[in-house]
Amino acid sequence: MPELRRDPVSGRWVIISVERGKRPSDFPVRYHTKRGGFCAFCEGNEYTTPPEVYAIRPDGSRPNTPGWTLRVVPNKFPALSMDGETWRVAEGIYDKMNGVGAHEVIIETPDHNMTLSDLPLKGVEDVLVAFYKRISELEKDERLKYVLIFKNEGDAAGASLEHSHSQLIALPIVPRIVEQEIENARRYFEYKERCIFCDIIHQELLTKTRLISENEDFVSIAPFAPPSPFETMILPKRHESSYRPDSKISLLAEILQRTLKQIDRVLDKPPYNMMIHTAPLRMEKSEYYHWHIEIKPRLTTMAGFEWGSGFYINPTPPEDAARFLREAEI
Amino acid sequence: MPELRRDPVSGRWVIISVERGKRPSDFPVRYHTKRGGFCAFCEGNEYTTPPEVYAIRPDGSRPNTPGWTLRVVPNKFPALSMDGETWRVAEGIYDKMNGVGAHEVIIETPDHNMTLSDLPLKGVEDVLVAFYKRISELEKDERLKYVLIFKNEGDAAGASLEHSHSQLIALPIVPRIVEQEIENARRYFEYKERCIFCDIIHQELLTKTRLISENEDFVSIAPFAPPSPFETMILPKRHESSYRPDSKISLLAEILQRTLKQIDRVLDKPPYNMMIHTAPLRMEKSEYYHWHIEIKPRLTTMAGFEWGSGFYINPTPPEDAARFLREAEI
Repeated sequence: MPELRRDPVSGRWVIISVERGKRPSDFPVRYHTKRGGFCAFCEGNEYTTPPEVYAIRPDGSRPNTPGWTLRVVPNKFPALSMDGETWRVAEGIYDKMNGVGAHEVIIETPDHNMTLSDLPLKGVEDVLVAFYKRISELEKDERLKYVLIFKNEGDAAGASLEHSHSQLIALPIVPRIVEQEIENARRYFEYKERCIFCDIIHQELLTKTRLISENEDFVSIAPFAPPSPFETMILPKRHESSYRPDSKISLLAEILQRTLKQIDRVLDKPPYNMMIHTAPLRMEKSEYYHWHIEIKPRLTTMAGFEWGSGFYINPTPPEDAARFLREAEI
Repeated sequence: MPELRRDPVSGRWVIISVERGKRPSDFPVRYHTKRGGFCAFCEGNEYTTPPEVYAIRPDGSRPNTPGWTLRVVPNKFPALSMDGETWRVAEGIYDKMNGVGAHEVIIETPDHNMTLSDLPLKGVEDVLVAFYKRISELEKDERLKYVLIFKNEGDAAGASLEHSHSQLIALPIVPRIVEQEIENARRYFEYKERCIFCDIIHQELLTKTRLISENEDFVSIAPFAPPSPFETMILPKRHESSYRPDSKISLLAEILQRTLKQIDRVLDKPPYNMMIHTAPLRMEKSEYYHWHIEIKPRLTTMAGFEWGSGFYINPTPPEDAARFLREAEI
């Protein structure tokens, strides 16, 4: 009999097909090799992007010229605009506000053929530092309430450009998925006086059935009730509400790279989405919220049932997914 | 500047690209013509499905033989199982329950090459009646709390079989998207003493900018803040909390068919999902909830931003979508 499981953080119920669990080879391969052609993110084409707002480049090298190892530029076709004040207004019974916010692209490497998982460890570290630097910078803008960092790898995951990059959208409101996580975590804390994420980490390190890997400061797990196959979550072991890797950055880079390599190996470089969930900007240190990274290989299609119900059917139990990933030779 | 709009029913915020709105021809064509081959849903192959639980067939014709115009059969690979009682149990800090529920397929026509929008009006009526008959039957089972009716048309919308069909999943809990709609509608009613859906219908009939079509009893509109392009909602004009079309069934069939034909015409038979949102089973008539049908053409890819935030970017303002659909020659 299938099992219904509830994700304690989102409150989402998921149907897990325990009996006829799908193995990695049951998913159609969707990865497309890169096609090449002109690419605005390649070294030498710096003039085709908006001017960089952050870069890692040798001392003395001029902005928007070759020689960099990482660049952050505003998105040429931004979903939100940085002009003007935020206002809210009614349209009859409806509510709207103007689209103030930032939309930036983190170009992770000058090399068109690399992916985040192929980069040297230092390259992954640089990307993680860039995330933090941009969040810190945007935090100064009082109009902005939240910065969401995310990555779409591969066509099927929504990437419109194949050169390896992440994105950042800074929003004038806290997005509802984060708000729900915070609210659920707050209610759990009220009842238990413990952080729900700390409890999850404790239980996963104890049972080990959904553990993928760990190092001194971080843990990589398959969540108990993931909406789709082979989802992975990376969390700091010590309680920390905001993404601020500081000195532990090399350990975070290490576990992120290892997890991505495991996913690449087991699922043959699948398309995936990656998101960082962290506390809202300028929120004080919280006892109940705990930042984390979510990685979601795109192996299944969201259909009418999922759209209509918010319920998900996951054909691969996370215990199986964790075992495949844990045992991958990378 | 883009506009942020809030859907009053779901509470979801959507970024609407007002300035450079995408037109129908901007979306890549994703429709696949049918490939044929052996099909378990075709007339003559009744023996390959589980025995039918409902059918429209000539008087005297035996179940599970040819001659039918519509069949409802249990899904051969059900997501949930009808055996046993429901129980809930903890697994450490986690919650789970067993997967009790029904999963049925409504085979809408014996003809492999038809789609729901191609059927004669009587065929669409039969499908809508079948939905109601199955809900009424499953409502007797006290273990079940909700029946979700949905349809996946086309590969990209998650249809694994190309023969035109809808599905029904009966669940032991009310799914969270419906629960959120009910909760938001209840709060609105508490404050206004009016049904939020009735208010939406009133405003849309007044302004007409998002109106797609109407008849005596139903209205078809583009919602104010749809998460994706060309979404459409069909609602009964008179307040009614549960899907129970009764005598108005021919008017519902008429507007549903017209709307699907408009979508087919404007977007070149796109893949789409359709869902019916109705009050939970055995819920008393409610003053604040109002059943409706949602149709969601699948033109965009859900990416990391949407997964991570629950926020959506819609490149086609619903006012534009409604105009294209309204003016379609069908």
